[in-house]
Amino acid sequence: MRPLIEMTNQTTILDPKLEQTVSQLRCIECGAVHKSASRTLRCPSCGDLLEIIYPAWKTSGGRAAGLNASELKALWRQRRSSRAAVDQSGVWRFREVLPALASGHEAITLREGNTPLYEMPRSARIAGVPHLYAKHQGMNPTGSFKDTGMTVSASFARQEGFRWVACASTGNTSASMAAYAARGGMRSLVLIPDGKVSWGKLSQALDYGAVTCQLKTDFDGCMRVLNEVVERMPVYLLNSINPYRLEGQKTAAIELLEQCDWQSPDHVIVPGGNLGNSSALGKAFLEMRELGLISRMPKLSVIQAEGANPLVRTVRETSGKRLIPVQAETMATAIRIGHPASWKKAVRVLEATGGTVEQVSEIEIAQAKAEIGADGVGCEPASAVTLAGLKKLVKQGFVKPSETVVLVLTGHLLKDPEFTLKFHRGDLFSGTPLESQAAILAAHERAPIVLDASADAVVKTLEQAETLADEP
Amino acid sequence: MRPLIEMTNQTTILDPKLEQTVSQLRCIECGAVHKSASRTLRCPSCGDLLEIIYPAWKTSGGRAAGLNASELKALWRQRRSSRAAVDQSGVWRFREVLPALASGHEAITLREGNTPLYEMPRSARIAGVPHLYAKHQGMNPTGSFKDTGMTVSASFARQEGFRWVACASTGNTSASMAAYAARGGMRSLVLIPDGKVSWGKLSQALDYGAVTCQLKTDFDGCMRVLNEVVERMPVYLLNSINPYRLEGQKTAAIELLEQCDWQSPDHVIVPGGNLGNSSALGKAFLEMRELGLISRMPKLSVIQAEGANPLVRTVRETSGKRLIPVQAETMATAIRIGHPASWKKAVRVLEATGGTVEQVSEIEIAQAKAEIGADGVGCEPASAVTLAGLKKLVKQGFVKPSETVVLVLTGHLLKDPEFTLKFHRGDLFSGTPLESQAAILAAHERAPIVLDASADAVVKTLEQAETLADEP
Repeated sequence: MRPLIEMTNQTTILDPKLEQTVSQLRCIECGAVHKSASRTLRCPSCGDLLEIIYPAWKTSGGRAAGLNASELKALWRQRRSSRAAVDQSGVWRFREVLPALASGHEAITLREGNTPLYEMPRSARIAGVPHLYAKHQGMNPTGSFKDTGMTVSASFARQEGFRWVACASTGNTSASMAAYAARGGMRSLVLIPDGKVSWGKLSQALDYGAVTCQLKTDFDGCMRVLNEVVERMPVYLLNSINPYRLEGQKTAAIELLEQCDWQSPDHVIVPGGNLGNSSALGKAFLEMRELGLISRMPKLSVIQAEGANPLVRTVRETSGKRLIPVQAETMATAIRIGHPASWKKAVRVLEATGGTVEQVSEIEIAQAKAEIGADGVGCEPASAVTLAGLKKLVKQGFVKPSETVVLVLTGHLLKDPEFTLKFHRGDLFSGTPLESQAAILAAHERAPIVLDASADAVVKTLEQAETLADEP
Repeated sequence: MRPLIEMTNQTTILDPKLEQTVSQLRCIECGAVHKSASRTLRCPSCGDLLEIIYPAWKTSGGRAAGLNASELKALWRQRRSSRAAVDQSGVWRFREVLPALASGHEAITLREGNTPLYEMPRSARIAGVPHLYAKHQGMNPTGSFKDTGMTVSASFARQEGFRWVACASTGNTSASMAAYAARGGMRSLVLIPDGKVSWGKLSQALDYGAVTCQLKTDFDGCMRVLNEVVERMPVYLLNSINPYRLEGQKTAAIELLEQCDWQSPDHVIVPGGNLGNSSALGKAFLEMRELGLISRMPKLSVIQAEGANPLVRTVRETSGKRLIPVQAETMATAIRIGHPASWKKAVRVLEATGGTVEQVSEIEIAQAKAEIGADGVGCEPASAVTLAGLKKLVKQGFVKPSETVVLVLTGHLLKDPEFTLKFHRGDLFSGTPLESQAAILAAHERAPIVLDASADAVVKTLEQAETLADEP
């Protein structure tokens, strides 16, 4: 019997003249080029991060040899209506600009990518920019942008013969890694700090069958142990410095440009945590210009929480020369990172695209999250920094009202229901200063109302709600 | 400046010869045909449920006048690569077989549908059917299949001029309704029983801005109050008997057939709660055969939890003649329904397709959920009844090993992280009889392990995990 799905996930590029994806690993600091990475994924020469480059693209004056821009656009679009799993993936359908798996090796895919670009009419009015959109990476299979990177890195882990993959993570990364490992027939190992981790965040990793070790140490301690483990055991490291993950994540930017019919928006605004995602999206914009698919770069700006603002401080206090790590504290847990691994890459993206940095308070994050929700689009708190930051950038004049803005939402609303409940019940900011009461009161309008079981009571509530403005 | 998205969501069918979607409402019991529904969405003549029919389809001997099967297949496929929001929706791209919005009215869409069909290799080995797939409706924007129906019913609510929509619901329906209402610029009202509802299930409705009333009554009491409210106030009822919701939900079956290249699978297995979804999917299979898009019907079977098995009892004890309601109790909350509204429609689908019913225990549900997870595909407990039921149907010989089976997963893993955590920590079935220990022990293998912060300890754990079979 013929299978329902065309099972092959082979990414071999059928048109040989498009076969340009011979890739190399290059150190971002010393520039040394390597065929493969060390177990810790750092430059064997100087220890800094690696990035993936495509030397063939350089051979014809900035344009890639054989890669014709309009052919690529047509091919990528056409694959959307294909039945092959590898074409249905919103990552692998862009495989001409990804590292190629060796012949006979298949991609591990959960049909990641192809996420919606939503118009955001209410948020637009609040921010004062009529042309506002949200690229929702939380609509990926495990609910966060991590999936787009994991499909690539997990596929390479399996190609290299690894039976185990591992990360130190407490949230979205472990969920995504465990799913792709299971999908690819590999085992996965998650190291978490004992007692300092929300169990809710691990339910996905457990469901997908990860081996989860709680270590009696903090997060940095977990990373140290993991780096030792990967040196001693055949375990593939899937932390955010993995350059294959960033190659997958960059496809979100390519897809965004495609959704804009290859007319770059003026601004793309991204939450800043470990800064791998900002780096990946920026890399994509630069590569798309290099390949002639766009003529103009969007400005990529990064927003952080005030309590986890190492990039903001690094840019403002050292002009991006030296990382200023911080002790991170924010309720937006997905960006609660004080020592971001990819800070150098992110600084370069800011400089290359002309973007900026900004920071926002906890109340501004909560308020922005509710405003995004009122557009019918849920997200996790870390994603909401984008709208909160945009409001400031508009006030500062960095973003003009006539400009087109895309917010990158990185995680699904269901990743953190606790935050939402607490906010609307008014528990999130109890004890905060008076000047914040307005925001808190606005939140209370959505708190549940206890009523007698009578239509009269409900009708009265409806009539009261009608008299309140439903627009902020 | 040209907008990034083609903003029009107008569903007007461009090719006039395809304009066949003049629909009517017909009572499933007395057959009376109505132009519109009463406020309570029931037949004004006899009070039973209504269904949407397309009289024009009958005019040319079972084939729809003007609707050519191969043209439809090509058109629906081609829309996948369109930039228009209404084509990107996995519901509205099938608009030739949906009720048509009036000219000038737009669809409210969150790019629902277009959900993946996953091959399920591990679950297939466990169930003993090599050709096993999962159609994952939990990959919809708010995390459940409800979105595919809500985009249609909310669009019609707005077309009819309603400013308010309402439902009595404690879970997926309220989340979806609130999102589409917000998206469409309408307000939403959720009635829930006081003190009997998990707050987590409502975080989505709150985020999307629903007015939430906790009534001092039970769920049936909420429904009674709501029916009175919709008679007195201009509020549109979005409960599961809404026939427009079912029209949207049926597109999942059409999309499934498309993913199978219009070769029907032998079996489609669906969780049974209020039975609207089973009814909708069955309606689609019947219509697709009527329109000549498939030549053979899949058998549609419905699985319920033992503690919420009214359809199983109705079929077995009355041959589907009379509903046997039950006091529902199951941890699979999405199907904890004792008095299913759409039972008559579901019975007719079982008879028309040759499907069957089965019931499964709480432990079987939990075990099946973990097995689906091990394929890298998470789901909520209610969805896992499909795999648990399939195992029984294979043992009974109703499903043959050579046959192709599709499980319909209805909700995302993140809808109920609590269940997953409890299961893997062994808390879910503490105190259950000895014969269930095997399942519980299997679960424990994934429980987190507390270790000293040393690579030695982690390496030892890895070595132990290696010696355990990673295949069930």
